[in-house]
Amino acid sequence: MTEIEIRSAMARAVDEAREKNPLAPSITNTVTQDFVANAQLAVGGSAAMIYLPDECESIMQVAQAFYVNMGTAMPFYEETLPRAVKACHELQKPWVLDPVGIGLSELRTKLLLQFKEFKPSIVRGNASEIIALAKLWGLIDTADGQVRGVETTEKVSAAKVAAVSLAKCTGGAVAVSGEEDLITDSKELILCAGGSELFTKITGSGCALGGVMAVYAAVATPFIAAMAATTMFNFAGSKAAAQVNAPASFKVHFLDNLYRLEPNDISKSFRSANSLEGMFEFGLTPRVD
Amino acid sequence: MTEIEIRSAMARAVDEAREKNPLAPSITNTVTQDFVANAQLAVGGSAAMIYLPDECESIMQVAQAFYVNMGTAMPFYEETLPRAVKACHELQKPWVLDPVGIGLSELRTKLLLQFKEFKPSIVRGNASEIIALAKLWGLIDTADGQVRGVETTEKVSAAKVAAVSLAKCTGGAVAVSGEEDLITDSKELILCAGGSELFTKITGSGCALGGVMAVYAAVATPFIAAMAATTMFNFAGSKAAAQVNAPASFKVHFLDNLYRLEPNDISKSFRSANSLEGMFEFGLTPRVD
Amino acid sequence: MTEIEIRSAMARAVDEAREKNPLAPSITNTVTQDFVANAQLAVGGSAAMIYLPDECESIMQVAQAFYVNMGTAMPFYEETLPRAVKACHELQKPWVLDPVGIGLSELRTKLLLQFKEFKPSIVRGNASEIIALAKLWGLIDTADGQVRGVETTEKVSAAKVAAVSLAKCTGGAVAVSGEEDLITDSKELILCAGGSELFTKITGSGCALGGVMAVYAAVATPFIAAMAATTMFNFAGSKAAAQVNAPASFKVHFLDNLYRLEPNDISKSFRSANSLEGMFEFGLTPRVD
Repeated sequence: MTEIEIRSAMARAVDEAREKNPLAPSITNTVTQDFVANAQLAVGGSAAMIYLPDECESIMQVAQAFYVNMGTAMPFYEETLPRAVKACHELQKPWVLDPVGIGLSELRTKLLLQFKEFKPSIVRGNASEIIALAKLWGLIDTADGQVRGVETTEKVSAAKVAAVSLAKCTGGAVAVSGEEDLITDSKELILCAGGSELFTKITGSGCALGGVMAVYAAVATPFIAAMAATTMFNFAGSKAAAQVNAPASFKVHFLDNLYRLEPNDISKSFRSANSLEGMFEFGLTPRVD
Repeated sequence: MTEIEIRSAMARAVDEAREKNPLAPSITNTVTQDFVANAQLAVGGSAAMIYLPDECESIMQVAQAFYVNMGTAMPFYEETLPRAVKACHELQKPWVLDPVGIGLSELRTKLLLQFKEFKPSIVRGNASEIIALAKLWGLIDTADGQVRGVETTEKVSAAKVAAVSLAKCTGGAVAVSGEEDLITDSKELILCAGGSELFTKITGSGCALGGVMAVYAAVATPFIAAMAATTMFNFAGSKAAAQVNAPASFKVHFLDNLYRLEPNDISKSFRSANSLEGMFEFGLTPRVD
Repeated sequence: MTEIEIRSAMARAVDEAREKNPLAPSITNTVTQDFVANAQLAVGGSAAMIYLPDECESIMQVAQAFYVNMGTAMPFYEETLPRAVKACHELQKPWVLDPVGIGLSELRTKLLLQFKEFKPSIVRGNASEIIALAKLWGLIDTADGQVRGVETTEKVSAAKVAAVSLAKCTGGAVAVSGEEDLITDSKELILCAGGSELFTKITGSGCALGGVMAVYAAVATPFIAAMAATTMFNFAGSKAAAQVNAPASFKVHFLDNLYRLEPNDISKSFRSANSLEGMFEFGLTPRVD
């Protein structure tokens, strides 16, 4: 895809989500459910959080996409998660995986191994998590990313090979979040700048990003969905950081901006790519294969 | 009741809740617990969220009302919910039911069927949910309301017969939330206007409304409690929408307004009923039987 | 410790938390997890909420402190909680206990009895809860504190003997929250003023305080950690209450202030101890043994 094609596909996704209000239910951690749901609503989506396996199967009959964030695993996840993602796979509904906490327990390892066959449309995580997942799935045999709680210090570039391998494996997209964000579908690989340091001072911005990716995945390809959500977050976050300088008011302004941003803003933020204030840097590694 | 009697009973409820700080515990979805609790505190109530069956029974000894929102059902709800509402019924404490997600699983159907005998003092839901519950309880045999996730597109007027049937069955009140809100105790039927489109852009306003109804049910009849909570929400929401125009700051202003509103505001908002800016329309269907 | 030693130790704790970003995972109630995590991040800590027993053991290998809030107990807490606090004890990592809901069920009583041997570094609660815990552990045989839901009307001074007994038993610190806050390690006993009535109008400020105590416990003694967290909360709360006068915006400003406060602010707030606006009163009962 050319840069111009990507830009206009992203703008279309942002527009269509507002118009169609796609339902993107989640199994997500209990800490940030409110943030995830409000971010999904802010971009025009519809939210529903679920724990029971048959309810996941049932809601996927009417939903357009699904989001799985492994955050605060509970005992019944052992049954719920595989049945939910199997339903997505069989119904050919896109689903987004955030493998947060990978490596923390045998249950997570077991579940994440099962997920491989159900091919998440988008995998989103920090560099350590993406590296650890690619290793778990036997796609790379390099160093195990250091996972420390839910944080990472790894740079996204360290996860380049892992991300591309995962994208090849799933046939979908992979988004590595960090100071910059790396997004690839194994053919395109884009590094997005923008956002704000304040994202690291509020809980759940990564979770909310995954939830919004699921909303866009209902109306666009995995790659465009990951790009659109990331761009929205970076732009809304940059704006919020220019408006306020502390985390709680940053979160309020960020969500407000997410709601107010228009497809045009996405294009505008892209137009500044090569300017001095350039928020987006395309094509640092335009092709990887 | 005359309009003036309703107005002054509502103002008394708002006043008494501030004065007596009634404890209205909840079994409610994990997504919006924070919002529910903060809304309950803002109107003067006291909150406590619970999952274990014996803890529900235990807290109902000292609580004044209870709120059951079926949102994010977990496996142990099968035991917790029936025991909790049985305790409310036996102790003659008012309880509010939000049947969100009705029809999504056999567990929900089974639980909601059991609830019939324990007569919720207030049932609150959107039009689809109210229609589905009336049908499940065998009160009407009309079309099954289309339930799509946690949203509805149905107009509240479509749920008029269902709402009145439910209220007759429970001997309590039913509140149908929508662009306008329909409230009935089977004798009175009132359509309340007001509120804001922004309520649909934040998650949990319906949940929070149910929680606040439980607070008022501790100090007023189910009908007056449903009316007072709805009026507070509509007025606080309208004010917030006049102050800001995006969802996250709307939520902050809404909760602040809820806290600041005084019994007088309730009356004032009522006085404007027949004026041009009229927020409340009484007596569209003043009597239904 | 002299007052000046306490002041400078607190300032160091505030500083070190910002510098070292200690990871302080929590098992905490589902209502206020978002608030707890955001408060921990605001003071420089790192957060992770957990439910599974093996995940608690696993994360404690890399974490610096732990926070247990018994709020919304779920069935699996029976296994998770004892294993988590045993791991803390064996790894000699500080952990903070909030015994909220004490007395509500046999499970809570059973768990809290087990906790005695694992010696929480800090116990934080309201007066009723502290009295009830001291009684449960057989440390005092006076009147059972009336526990009503998650609120209390008891004055902190009523819990003085209970708090000192608990601190002697654990060898750590005890913080009794109320209009004023009583903090003791059984040798020092300090009454802190400040804060705001608005803390009682938002849910979770006590939970968030416990979470922040855990962050500071990673870089200071239990007593200093309890003092630093309490001082930060009181100062950030007082400032927020001077900025706004309603609960939802109070919460936003409070968190923002928490993020902005510097070690110097802590000292400054202390310097005003004996002035007219004096926020802190030292040495009301400087030594208790």
